[in-house]
Amino acid sequence: MKNVKTIEWLTSAMRNPDTKYIVFNNLRPLLEPISIKNSRWGYTLARIDSKDVQNYLQSNPHVVFLGLEKFSGETKKSTENEEEGRALFAVDVSSIEESLYKEMVPKSEFAAGFPLAMQLEPSEAGILSEARTVLDWLERYKFCATCGSATTVLEGGYKRKCENKECKSNKGVHNTCYPRTDPSVIMLVISQDGKRCLLGRQKRFPAKMWSCLAGFIEPGESIEDACRREVEEESGIKVGRVTYHSSQPWPFPASLMLGCIAYATSDTIKVDEDEMEDARWFRRPEVVQMLTHQHPQGLYVPPEQAIAHQIIKSWVRMTANL
Amino acid sequence: MKNVKTIEWLTSAMRNPDTKYIVFNNLRPLLEPISIKNSRWGYTLARIDSKDVQNYLQSNPHVVFLGLEKFSGETKKSTENEEEGRALFAVDVSSIEESLYKEMVPKSEFAAGFPLAMQLEPSEAGILSEARTVLDWLERYKFCATCGSATTVLEGGYKRKCENKECKSNKGVHNTCYPRTDPSVIMLVISQDGKRCLLGRQKRFPAKMWSCLAGFIEPGESIEDACRREVEEESGIKVGRVTYHSSQPWPFPASLMLGCIAYATSDTIKVDEDEMEDARWFRRPEVVQMLTHQHPQGLYVPPEQAIAHQIIKSWVRMTANL
Ligand SMILES: Nc1ncnc2c1ncn2[C@@H]1O[C@H](COP(=O)(O)O)[C@@H](O)[C@H]1O
Ligand SMILES: Nc1ncnc2c1ncn2[C@@H]1O[C@H](COP(=O)(O)O)[C@@H](O)[C@H]1O
Ligand SMILES: [Mg+2]
Ligand SMILES: [Mg+2]
Ligand SMILES: [Mg+2]
Ligand SMILES: [Mg+2]
Ligand SMILES: [Mg+2]
Ligand SMILES: [Mg+2]
Ligand SMILES: [Zn+2]
Ligand SMILES: [Zn+2]
Repeated sequence: MKNVKTIEWLTSAMRNPDTKYIVFNNLRPLLEPISIKNSRWGYTLARIDSKDVQNYLQSNPHVVFLGLEKFSGETKKSTENEEEGRALFAVDVSSIEESLYKEMVPKSEFAAGFPLAMQLEPSEAGILSEARTVLDWLERYKFCATCGSATTVLEGGYKRKCENKECKSNKGVHNTCYPRTDPSVIMLVISQDGKRCLLGRQKRFPAKMWSCLAGFIEPGESIEDACRREVEEESGIKVGRVTYHSSQPWPFPASLMLGCIAYATSDTIKVDEDEMEDARWFRRPEVVQMLTHQHPQGLYVPPEQAIAHQIIKSWVRMTANL
Repeated sequence: MKNVKTIEWLTSAMRNPDTKYIVFNNLRPLLEPISIKNSRWGYTLARIDSKDVQNYLQSNPHVVFLGLEKFSGETKKSTENEEEGRALFAVDVSSIEESLYKEMVPKSEFAAGFPLAMQLEPSEAGILSEARTVLDWLERYKFCATCGSATTVLEGGYKRKCENKECKSNKGVHNTCYPRTDPSVIMLVISQDGKRCLLGRQKRFPAKMWSCLAGFIEPGESIEDACRREVEEESGIKVGRVTYHSSQPWPFPASLMLGCIAYATSDTIKVDEDEMEDARWFRRPEVVQMLTHQHPQGLYVPPEQAIAHQIIKSWVRMTANL
């Protein structure tokens, strides 16, 4: 939450006529096509007027404060928040008919999964990521993990407090009260000769898509340890040096992807049949074809909004002399 | 968990006479002084013989599988695990008198907090980190967060399953079942002129200790976003470029510290009085004194086992020409 606000401020902001709401139905955001011609991005998160959610708010749905937005390009209205901008919230409208909010925004739709989300401008994708993760947490972490009691939501959706006064979680600061983020590693493994990289297919991948190996960080591990363990588990390949590339939040439901380049110290692949459908070495020219959708068999890698794409592209660029 | 084992394997390993146990009392590990002369490290985790915990295991304490250890330097015993090594588990002995296990190991003690843990050899610190985090999770995450029901421990301590068959958490894979790791950023902020770095004091720090700023990653953030937000919240300083340095698990209770160097784009500090006691710019020569415990007023930074120390030292080395 970018701006910590008091409960009074939040309650008043939720009612303020300038406030906007983005709405989610079963974690699917309502998206609106972008009207700007030739835009790189296809959609924005539809912003619903404050007045159009006030009735519904009486039923106490999950609400998440997302910060303040500029009144950009709009006539300024007289408001106490004039300088700060207007408040933006996310609200879970799963309990009402989809059509109600869809009809308010021409051509809008509740977007399933991430393919549509991939067509959001990066700043919108960031808002979606935060809102979706917190809404999912509010829905799946309703009870106190320490004692099983009910909990109360505080701080604009970013905290839950156990209602049992005797509970240990009410003494001191405990992570049971806060949304969870699961760090995971995603890595491109480079062969010992530097000429090939290791890509894999999870069983649930669309046909012909190959990507970097990935896995959750386990208790007590560093990023570098987790890379070595996951690569060995999934492909049998041993890894030495690991370098960090970049990170990306992944809100399905709450990962922080830590992207790395990992250098193999062995060559023979032994695929973990439980977790993976396949894994193999690819030479650079083939990877270039996969990145640019020119592979003769139609093999491809994830799109540019995915960190896997960026790591793979980075290696291709680093090795232009191969 | 380095080696995924079946429940039958784990049950048999827990009884195997070769198996060793490390013991924790209220999350404090039993440590034994190292006997090797002039060792850099002061302690190891005391290993209790399997036979000495068998009775206690009847009471169903929290047990965590930690992997297989070599029978290094010891006479090999005849065992089915001969090749693999012997199993190592952690067991929570909080419900029994401290003296019982202390008396088994000469000069041992249950170490409070991290000062003693800092004197462990890195591989032992890694085992401690994993064991402590999982034991803490087993104790504080006993109930299903989705429905409030009781849960059953599986997979050597690394998974919990809701006992309510109707619970959503039993359909598909959900993070409610797995130990939690909280990613957090820790960063050394470098001034615009490159000559100073920003150090802060949290209220709970020992007197005269200064360290890097740090904070939890929030939903939907990348490492780089979180660095910028936390630095601005805690010190008012704006940050532009962020580079990753290294990561370290921090088992108090379950953080993954992501160490960065962050480059300031503003200069005037405004300390967040709620979260911090103080924050200020330090010039390189003063930082060198703090690293080497030669500061005239006795100011110092965390010890070398802490990632903060390594990041600070890295900057001092990068700027040897200042
Ligand atoms: N936080 C978590 N969320 C979901 N699955 C997890 C988590 N931690 C461990 N797992 C397990 O990790 C598997 C996915 O493997 P990987 O992504 O390679 O680590 C899942 O099927 C779960 O069994
Ligand atoms: N996972 C978490 N565990 C503990 N405290 C958290 C967590 N997430 C947010 N917080 C809050 O963050 C504060 C510490 O500030 P910081 O470490 O600077 O982010 C705590 O006092 C909590 O209010
Ligand atoms: Mg895994
Ligand atoms: Mg895996
Ligand atoms: Mg995986
Ligand atoms: Mg924070
Ligand atoms: Mg903070
Ligand atoms: Mg902090
Ligand atoms: Zn509770
Ligand atoms: Zn449940």
